[in-house]
Amino acid sequence: MTSKQPTTRTRKSPEQVRAAVHQAVVDLLCDPQGEDLTIPAVAQRAGVNHTSLYRRWGSLQALLADVVTTRLERDSPLDDTGTLRGDLLTWARASAASVRTPEGRALVRAVILSMPSGTQAQDERAQHFRRRMHSIEQIRLRAAARGENPPPVEQILDQLVAPFYLRAIFGIDPPATGYPELLVDRLLGSAGTGPAPD
Amino acid sequence: MTSKQPTTRTRKSPEQVRAAVHQAVVDLLCDPQGEDLTIPAVAQRAGVNHTSLYRRWGSLQALLADVVTTRLERDSPLDDTGTLRGDLLTWARASAASVRTPEGRALVRAVILSMPSGTQAQDERAQHFRRRMHSIEQIRLRAAARGENPPPVEQILDQLVAPFYLRAIFGIDPPATGYPELLVDRLLGSAGTGPAPD
Repeated sequence: MTSKQPTTRTRKSPEQVRAAVHQAVVDLLCDPQGEDLTIPAVAQRAGVNHTSLYRRWGSLQALLADVVTTRLERDSPLDDTGTLRGDLLTWARASAASVRTPEGRALVRAVILSMPSGTQAQDERAQHFRRRMHSIEQIRLRAAARGENPPPVEQILDQLVAPFYLRAIFGIDPPATGYPELLVDRLLGSAGTGPAPD
Repeated sequence: MTSKQPTTRTRKSPEQVRAAVHQAVVDLLCDPQGEDLTIPAVAQRAGVNHTSLYRRWGSLQALLADVVTTRLERDSPLDDTGTLRGDLLTWARASAASVRTPEGRALVRAVILSMPSGTQAQDERAQHFRRRMHSIEQIRLRAAARGENPPPVEQILDQLVAPFYLRAIFGIDPPATGYPELLVDRLLGSAGTGPAPD
């Protein structure tokens, strides 16, 4: 933050700017106070010049994608519990805890806002999707390596991932107890009736 | 807006402005061409002055809520098929057809963007939620009146509504055949194992 010789203004390092801008995005998503989420609003909140935000990230969407990638990678440790069911429960419990917090809901919102929406952006969207499904894919790969028979990605998306996203969007807390177990039981209980795993 | 004497520029009526602005929102969501969705971007696309948008809607979020309410009310006829399963299938088939179109995905995106996200906005969010769940609630009420035993709203949210939202967000088309039936069967098949209907 400071150079060796004292200056009258404190200058932020690029990493400090990045941290302040990321925090401003999360804060604005959690507590917008009527403000639309825009680059100038983020810049003002972070105390940096908005031209430097455009220079560094190019667009609000790119900035949001950076926030999401950084925070979700920090917040997603994925211990191997030894079983498919255990791994899915770990994922679901972390998600249930997360959507109960304003910051967790803000991150889901940021994921959605960072998705490219154009008709031309199908490839880019698929890439975002793969990045967001990375933990789920790891769980599936470990299960397959153990000789378990994991449900296809799309079924996990529909039955386990989607409910957390929608609850985060609408601000509907999951039931206080048993919710991760309920979703995982539904998923694994009906796994045999869906299409064969790919 | 227009005076009686002819003018050199064609002036739009308030309803024409509203239609042009709504279309501009949908177009920008479908095909942003790198532009962030902002009031000025919408105004430019609609060919109207951005100050009049701020005056009329106040914020991007309020504008999006207006678009969503208008379009979804137009697009959601809900015929009574005579059974809970039939009504849910009608809903799911319409949703499956919708998320396959760029405009349908854009509308889901608009629903999400129009949700107030602040920690203070819980009541407002709940109101949005009730408005979006209106069709589902009607289906439940009709079923109850017939003596059927519909699953609780939250279960329908988790198992039927959420998958469509998430597929719209990530641009993942539902399987070409049998998807509405699959979701409805999962929902009704497991209805007895969830918490008792409220």
